Amino acid sequence: MSLLKGIAASSGIAIAKAYCLVEPDLSFSKKTIEDSATEVARFQSALATSKNELEAIRDIAEKELGADDAAIFNAHVLVLTDPELIGPIEEKITTEQVNAEFALKETSDMFISMFEQMDNAYMQERAADIRDVTKRLLSHLLGVKIVNPSMISEEVVVIAEDLTPSDTAQLNRQFVKGFTTDIGGRTSHSAIMARSLEIPAVVGTQESTKLIQDGDLIIVDGLNGEIHINPSAEVVADYERKQQQFEQQKVEWAKLVNEKTITADGHQVELAANIGTPEDLVGVVNNGGEGVGLYRTEFLYMGKDQLPTEEEQFEAYKKVLQGMEGKPVVVRTLDIGGDKELSYLQLPEEMNPFLGFRAIRLCLEEQDIFRTQLRALLRASTFGNLKIMFPMIATLGEFRQAKAILEEEKQALLANGTVVAEHIEVGIMVEIPSTAVQADVFAKEVDFFSIGTNDLIQYTFAADRMNERVSYLYQPYNPAILRLVKMVIDAAHKEGKWAGMCGEMAGDEIAVPLLIGLGLDEFSMSATSILPARTQIKKLKKNDMVELVNEALQMGTAEEVVQAVKARTSL
Amino acid sequence: MSLLKGIAASSGIAIAKAYCLVEPDLSFSKKTIEDSATEVARFQSALATSKNELEAIRDIAEKELGADDAAIFNAHVLVLTDPELIGPIEEKITTEQVNAEFALKETSDMFISMFEQMDNAYMQERAADIRDVTKRLLSHLLGVKIVNPSMISEEVVVIAEDLTPSDTAQLNRQFVKGFTTDIGGRTSHSAIMARSLEIPAVVGTQESTKLIQDGDLIIVDGLNGEIHINPSAEVVADYERKQQQFEQQKVEWAKLVNEKTITADGHQVELAANIGTPEDLVGVVNNGGEGVGLYRTEFLYMGKDQLPTEEEQFEAYKKVLQGMEGKPVVVRTLDIGGDKELSYLQLPEEMNPFLGFRAIRLCLEEQDIFRTQLRALLRASTFGNLKIMFPMIATLGEFRQAKAILEEEKQALLANGTVVAEHIEVGIMVEIPSTAVQADVFAKEVDFFSIGTNDLIQYTFAADRMNERVSYLYQPYNPAILRLVKMVIDAAHKEGKWAGMCGEMAGDEIAVPLLIGLGLDEFSMSATSILPARTQIKKLKKNDMVELVNEALQMGTAEEVVQAVKARTSL
Repeated sequence: MSLLKGIAASSGIAIAKAYCLVEPDLSFSKKTIEDSATEVARFQSALATSKNELEAIRDIAEKELGADDAAIFNAHVLVLTDPELIGPIEEKITTEQVNAEFALKETSDMFISMFEQMDNAYMQERAADIRDVTKRLLSHLLGVKIVNPSMISEEVVVIAEDLTPSDTAQLNRQFVKGFTTDIGGRTSHSAIMARSLEIPAVVGTQESTKLIQDGDLIIVDGLNGEIHINPSAEVVADYERKQQQFEQQKVEWAKLVNEKTITADGHQVELAANIGTPEDLVGVVNNGGEGVGLYRTEFLYMGKDQLPTEEEQFEAYKKVLQGMEGKPVVVRTLDIGGDKELSYLQLPEEMNPFLGFRAIRLCLEEQDIFRTQLRALLRASTFGNLKIMFPMIATLGEFRQAKAILEEEKQALLANGTVVAEHIEVGIMVEIPSTAVQADVFAKEVDFFSIGTNDLIQYTFAADRMNERVSYLYQPYNPAILRLVKMVIDAAHKEGKWAGMCGEMAGDEIAVPLLIGLGLDEFSMSATSILPARTQIKKLKKNDMVELVNEALQMGTAEEVVQAVKARTSL
Repeated sequence: MSLLKGIAASSGIAIAKAYCLVEPDLSFSKKTIEDSATEVARFQSALATSKNELEAIRDIAEKELGADDAAIFNAHVLVLTDPELIGPIEEKITTEQVNAEFALKETSDMFISMFEQMDNAYMQERAADIRDVTKRLLSHLLGVKIVNPSMISEEVVVIAEDLTPSDTAQLNRQFVKGFTTDIGGRTSHSAIMARSLEIPAVVGTQESTKLIQDGDLIIVDGLNGEIHINPSAEVVADYERKQQQFEQQKVEWAKLVNEKTITADGHQVELAANIGTPEDLVGVVNNGGEGVGLYRTEFLYMGKDQLPTEEEQFEAYKKVLQGMEGKPVVVRTLDIGGDKELSYLQLPEEMNPFLGFRAIRLCLEEQDIFRTQLRALLRASTFGNLKIMFPMIATLGEFRQAKAILEEEKQALLANGTVVAEHIEVGIMVEIPSTAVQADVFAKEVDFFSIGTNDLIQYTFAADRMNERVSYLYQPYNPAILRLVKMVIDAAHKEGKWAGMCGEMAGDEIAVPLLIGLGLDEFSMSATSILPARTQIKKLKKNDMVELVNEALQMGTAEEVVQAVKARTSL
C-alpha cells in the first residue's frame, strides 16, 4: 500500500490490476557448454514453445483483426521452422560448445545484418522478422516474459516507462482502464492520446515501473496525478465514490453539449476538438465540439509498413468532413520527423530532432508525399467545411512555396474534371517564434492562424519540453508567451482573419481567461476538455478579462500571472 | 588538380601540404591462424614498433611541453610492457589459434571493462591508457596510420571531418597554415576558433576528407570558400599574388588600429572582440579592439581532467583585465552543456542538447561551480573594467537568482576583507526568444544586453544551425530577427542602458548597416573582423541606415532585406 505522485495527464479514475509493459531484460553471457546435446534439446524446446505461442497469437489476431493483420505472425512461424536459420544455430551449439543464447544471437545477427544490407524492402522485412523471433526465443531460453499490449484481454491499468504513439494505438479501450508512465509531461504524446481516448492517466511518475509489479491493484487518479499501489479497502471504497462523483459531474457538463460558448457579457467563441483519427469523432460530438480545430494526420502514416495511398487518405478525410456535418474541420498536413518517426521512411539521425528536418520542412523536400496528401484533401473538400493548415512554418518563403504546391495540385485536379470545393481556407500553425514575431506580414497572405503552444513554448524558451531537467522552463503563462499570442491575434484581426489555438494551453483553466481577454476566436482542445471549458467561459466577462490580460502582459514572471488570474476568477 | 567548394570560415589564403586528421579504420575480422608462432612474432613486432614510437613522442613532448605533459606517454610505455596484459594476449593467439588483432582486442576489452567498473579515478585512467595503447597496437598490426595533431612539425593544411574545440586547441599555429572540414558552417566552433587564431579555413566542404590524400598540395581560399587540390603551377602563382594582396589590404586596415569607430555623419559605436583565452589579447590589440565584448570562459574548463581552481580562474581573468588596460571586458559565465561537454562532469544524455541543460541552467543547479567562478571574477574585478554576463537567460526568475548568488558571493568576500570593484555592470546574453520579447521588463533590472545571434537565430526559427538539412533557416537578415534585435536595443535605450551584439552577425558586412540603423551600441566580433568593419562603418551614414532598416523591418523575407542593403550601400 503506497502512494506515487505524477502529473495528471487525463482526468477520471481507474481501478484495476497492473499490467507492466516493460521491455524484458534479454542480456546473457557467453558460456562454454560441455553437454551440447542437452543444450540443443533446450533450444528445441524454446523453439516449440515459441511456435505454439505464435500460433495462438495468430489465431486470436485473425479473429480480432482479420487475416491481413495476422499475416505477420505466420511469417514469424515460418522463420522458426526455417532450416537455413535453425541448422546453423544447432551446429554452432555443438561445434563451438557454446550456450544456445549465444549461438542464437550470433547467428541471427549475421542474418539480420546480411538482409539489412540488401537494398530491398522485402529483405528488410525479413530482417525485422528474424529480430522479433530471436527476441521471443531468447525470452523463453532465459525464462523472462515478453509483453504484447494488443493481446490484453482483461481489465488492467497499463504501467510503462513511456508509451509511443504506436503503443498507445494498440491499446484496447475495452480493457485498458488507465495507464501510468515514468516519463513525459502533460503535453507528451502519451498524455495527449490518453485524453483523446478518455483513459485516466498519470505520467512522469519517474518510478512506477520500478515500484509496481504485474497484478498489483492500482488506482489511477487522473484528476490529482496520484497512483495508489495495493490500496486498503477503505481507499478503494473512497475512490469508487470519487469515480461516481466524476461521472455525475460529467452528466452536469453534458447538459451544455448543444449550447454555444458565450461569455457572461455576450462574447462568443468557438470550442473545437483536436483529433487523430476518424474514430475520435464520436468523442467530439458527444462532448459538444463546435468543429475540429486540429486533425493530426500523422496517425494515417504510423503503425504501417508503407505510405498511405491517396485513396486511403481520401476516405479518412471524407469520413471526418461528413461526420462533422458542415462544421469547420482544420486538417494539419503531415507533421513527422522530430520525435515522430516512420519505419518505412529513412530519415537521418539528428543531433537535435526538435530543431530538425520535420513537418513542412520535410514535405517541401519530399514533395511526392506532400502532393499525395494535398490531392486527397482537395478531393475530399466537397464533403464538408475543410480548412488546410501547414505545420512548422518558420518563414514566409515556406508558406508561399507550400501554398503554390497546393494551388498546382488544385489546378491539375480541376483540369482533370475532378470537383474541388470553391473556397478552401489555407492557414498555418504558429509554433515557431519567427512566425509569431512576423504575424502581421503573414496575416496578409494566410486565411487563419492556429497557435500551437506546445512547440511555441519550447522554442520560445529554448527548452525541450520532454527533458525533465529543463521542464521548469515550460511556462505557458509567462508574459513572453502572452505577448507572442497577442501579436498573432491582433495581426489576424487587423486583416479580418481569425486566430485559433490548438496547443494544450487552449483548454487550460488558468490560460482560458487570459485567452478570452486576448480575443482568441477558436479554442481547440482534447474533446473531454470542451465541456469543462464551456462551463468556465460562461461565467467569465470578456471586459474583465481584457483588463486582466493587459496587466499580465506587463508582468515579469509566470508566477505573478497565475496569481493575478486566480485573484480575478474563482479558481 | 581539382576544386572543392565550401563555406568561407576564416579569411586569408594558405598554401601547404595536406595533413589528413581522420580517425583510422581499425576494423578487422576474427581469423583462424594455423601457425601461431609466426602470429605471436607479428604481435611482438607491433609491440616493439609501438614502444619505439611512444618513446620518441615522449621525448618530443618532454622537450616541447615539459615533463608533466609527457608523463602520459610513459604510462603508455608501461602498459606495453605489462606481462599481465601481454601474457594473456600471446596465450590466446596460441591456444585459440586466432589472429593477433582478435586476441588483442578481446583481452584489452576485458581489462578495460574490469577497470572501468571500479569506482576509482586511478583505475579509470588505466582503462583509458589501455584503450589508447590498444589503438596504437592495432594500427601497427593492420598497417594503418594513426594521427596526432599536436605532433605536427612541418607547415600543413589540416583536413578533417570536423574539429572539436579540443582538437583546435591542440593545433600548432606555427605549422598549421589552414584547415578544411567536411561539416559545420560559419558559426560552428571550428570556424569561430579559426577566425580567432587567424588561420584561413573553409568548412562544410562535405567531402574534403574523401577527396584529399596526405601530402596533396592544397590551397585554402578562406576569402571565397574554395579549396584547390594539387593545383597547377599557374594557379599556385595566382594564389601567391592573392596572398600578397590580402597582406597589403591588412596593412591598409592596420592604419585604422588606433582610430575610433564613427560613421560618416558622426555617430560613434564601439567595436570589441570575442576571445577565448588570455592569449587571444594580442590579436585584439593588434586589430584595434576597443574592448572585449565576449570572453568565453569555457576554454578554462575544457581539455583538462578536472574543474579549474578559483586561483587558476582568477589569474586568467586578471590577465585579460590588465591586458585591456581599463577598456571594457565582458566576461560570460560558464556556458557548457549542449554541444560543449566536459569529460569530468557527467551530464545526462539529452535528446535535444541545444534545448537542454546548459549554461545558466546548469550553473543555477551546480552552484559550487558557479560560485567558484563568480568569486574568481569578483576578486579580479579591481584589475580593470569588468562586466559580468550570464548566458542563456530565458526568464526574469533565472536572472534574479543568478544576480542574487553573485551578490551573496560579493558580500561574503567583502566581509572577509577582500577588495572588490565598487561597481561591476551585470548583464545578460539575449539568445533566447522569450528574453528578446520581454526585453523591456529585463531592461529595468540588467545593466546591459549582449545579443547572441548564433543561438537567437537557431531558436527563433527552431532550426539546428549545425544540421545541414535545415541550414536554409539560419537567416540572420530575416525581418523577424531584425524585429527582435530592435526590441532589445529600444528597450535598453529607454532605460538608459547599452545594447551590444556578440554573435557572428555583429561582424557581417550585410548586417552591419542594419545594426547601425537599429542603433546598436557595441559590436563584438572575431578580432580579425574589426578593422574591415571599421572601414565599412566609416563610410556609412547613420541617418540613411535608419531609413534602410525601417523599410527592412516591414519586409517579408530575408532575400528582400539583402537586396535592399546591397542597393543602399556599396556592397
